[in-house]
Amino acid sequence: MNNQIIKGFSNLSKEKKLKQVALLTQNPEETEKIFKTFWIQDEKTAKRFDEFSENTISMFGLPYGIAPNFIINQKKYFIPMVTEESSVVAAAANSAKFWANFGGFKSEIISTIKTGHVHFLWNGNYNKLLSVFVELKDRMIAKTNNITANMRERGGGIIDIEIVNLTAELENYYQIKATFETIDSMGANFINSCLEEFAEELKLFLQEKTIFINKEKNCDIVMAILSNYTPDCLVETSVECKISDFAKLDIDMEPEKFVQKFQAAVNIANVSTYRATTHNKGIFNGIDAVALATGNDFRALEAAGHVFASKTGKYKSLTNVELTQNNFKFTLKVPISIGTVGGLTQLHPLAKLSLEILGNPNARELMTILSSAGLANNFAAIKSLVTKGIQIGHMKMHLINILNTLNATENEKEEAKLFFENKKITVENVRRFLNK
Amino acid sequence: MNNQIIKGFSNLSKEKKLKQVALLTQNPEETEKIFKTFWIQDEKTAKRFDEFSENTISMFGLPYGIAPNFIINQKKYFIPMVTEESSVVAAAANSAKFWANFGGFKSEIISTIKTGHVHFLWNGNYNKLLSVFVELKDRMIAKTNNITANMRERGGGIIDIEIVNLTAELENYYQIKATFETIDSMGANFINSCLEEFAEELKLFLQEKTIFINKEKNCDIVMAILSNYTPDCLVETSVECKISDFAKLDIDMEPEKFVQKFQAAVNIANVSTYRATTHNKGIFNGIDAVALATGNDFRALEAAGHVFASKTGKYKSLTNVELTQNNFKFTLKVPISIGTVGGLTQLHPLAKLSLEILGNPNARELMTILSSAGLANNFAAIKSLVTKGIQIGHMKMHLINILNTLNATENEKEEAKLFFENKKITVENVRRFLNK
Repeated sequence: MNNQIIKGFSNLSKEKKLKQVALLTQNPEETEKIFKTFWIQDEKTAKRFDEFSENTISMFGLPYGIAPNFIINQKKYFIPMVTEESSVVAAAANSAKFWANFGGFKSEIISTIKTGHVHFLWNGNYNKLLSVFVELKDRMIAKTNNITANMRERGGGIIDIEIVNLTAELENYYQIKATFETIDSMGANFINSCLEEFAEELKLFLQEKTIFINKEKNCDIVMAILSNYTPDCLVETSVECKISDFAKLDIDMEPEKFVQKFQAAVNIANVSTYRATTHNKGIFNGIDAVALATGNDFRALEAAGHVFASKTGKYKSLTNVELTQNNFKFTLKVPISIGTVGGLTQLHPLAKLSLEILGNPNARELMTILSSAGLANNFAAIKSLVTKGIQIGHMKMHLINILNTLNATENEKEEAKLFFENKKITVENVRRFLNK
Repeated sequence: MNNQIIKGFSNLSKEKKLKQVALLTQNPEETEKIFKTFWIQDEKTAKRFDEFSENTISMFGLPYGIAPNFIINQKKYFIPMVTEESSVVAAAANSAKFWANFGGFKSEIISTIKTGHVHFLWNGNYNKLLSVFVELKDRMIAKTNNITANMRERGGGIIDIEIVNLTAELENYYQIKATFETIDSMGANFINSCLEEFAEELKLFLQEKTIFINKEKNCDIVMAILSNYTPDCLVETSVECKISDFAKLDIDMEPEKFVQKFQAAVNIANVSTYRATTHNKGIFNGIDAVALATGNDFRALEAAGHVFASKTGKYKSLTNVELTQNNFKFTLKVPISIGTVGGLTQLHPLAKLSLEILGNPNARELMTILSSAGLANNFAAIKSLVTKGIQIGHMKMHLINILNTLNATENEKEEAKLFFENKKITVENVRRFLNK
């Protein structure tokens, strides 16, 4: 292929885009055929779906699974999870089943505040700006009355607007920092629309007010945008049982030894960044799978969560264990900014159904569900790690993928499942088994 | 629904699982029907697909789009991106087109080392352990000869094994820290299998060697697992042009002013954690979309990237701008641990095709592609933010979703597109337009 730029790709029809892309593969006809098997048949749904994004030529599918029997705040849920990783759903289901015996997950919303900023450079007298800031604030709120009307009706809107002086860190750098309550929407578009109005108002205000002179009349709006860091949109979820209850866990270990190793694993995640990364990654295996299934933006959750984990200056575990003589308590505290309206939540046919399967929760309830899935996955991962090791369970789940990769027949697959029932599964071992 | 635990859900057939889940919705028959429209028709593909994960009842689709015309290291790519977020693909395509005029993306692999640990507690004399560590290391390598054979043939395997003393941070805590080269596989299963053998060997070794006495003969293996933190699996990608070249950008701003604001935006991300989070989130909009399209694990990439961004103790931007008098250079340095073999990369029909569309790159080349997509998205986001603001472009892309949410007819959609061509798009404004 030469490097000439192809112009007007975005203006082509879906069919023609696909045709052009297929030409990049060895068997264009076959490629087209495969991509088309993933086209949605119903025309209206297909169109809507393609319009979620741009240059859409097909639909990429991920397994939609169910982790049954989650008890969260006394309510039972079948949690839809979308993930490509084997053993994530099984792990969540396993934890859910165990904890259902001990009251399930207790989850509490700590706060639901979201934040956005007008970032601007201004070479002026800060105290002067501060002295008239109440007026500016009122004008900003008035200017967005239109945008916020609907949100206010639902009990949300702008919570507060303040000015942050960061000139000590960067020359002339200030923020208009605004906080919002966006109820059941993730709120990105709402917040950004407000912030852009604030920016316009700030510029007008500096021009109009006679208190500002010369250079103070102008400022440089660098950008106006919400923050995906949401440390004040926070949920805390925990499970709790007597230490002796772990005798009922499917492990070959004394309960006392188990909790001791479990605690060590969490302590290690607080000491070793290498471990904390993987520890928290496992939490997001659960959280992201539910985010995807409900049409939410997992990149926003990942960013907020990992930054939250690094807030002390050292990147640490998002979960915490408390052991008393008789009691084990395991807690996850994590920022989760999601929505149950807006975005794709109601537009994607399966996202909409996911929410219905969950009993049409509001955003607060959905926060409790995502964090419970995260805690469940972390519990399952640590349990495996400190008992029989991660590979036995994970590789058992993954065996079928290895067999498929090695093009095993259905017969061979059945034989392999039996053969590896009590043996170590590695790609090498499976390959050797098939060669025999 | 009562809270009784439903037993044996995982043993049900897919059909029966779906039936049970559908009962949780208002119209079970309709629900089943919708879920079934997303079933893969070809039986063999469907079975393989369902086996990726557990309790699969359907397939969750995400738009599969193409960002054309990426020039990376002189080679042209049409990059497959899977994302639910509007304007991510358009933004990448836009950046790609602009930078193609100026040599495209230059991307360099800095290193491809992955790390894993045996985390253990041991109450013994560290110097004693150190004095015989070479022997232990040899034994560990010998023990895994079997597992590593294939990888060694391909040029990879175990790079080194060392012991890390962290007893100052946590009582009795040590790590066997092993580094690996896993060539074209992400390597998680390979690494974990090796580490579990190392752990076994460590236990045997302490028992057998007479140098260790009493309590030193035992250690507590807390866990053996790879780390998703991969600061030594690193890629650096940059774009570069003359400042005057920005006259050709589709913005209404002098090039000098543009680069000055662009640099301010990056500086702000290094000063404000709130901003850095969103800044880096936008990078992962690009990276994750390609990870998904190629069957890679985006949670691993997110975790590694965000932790890397916090490595100085302050969470910062992953991109960096260098301005000289005439020159603009924009660079992303990010850890990317992915594979082109193993996992789902060759099992998922569209992941496999994605790799083919990309010219069947090896893992190193794929690292350059993911990071280029990340840099492209970051460039597009900052460009929008510092010029006309994020909402105009984003909301233009999102308008169609808003219209769909408000159940607009095709006619109304066409009229709305015209009407909002030069007007501010907010949900409120669209609602008002439709009510008229």
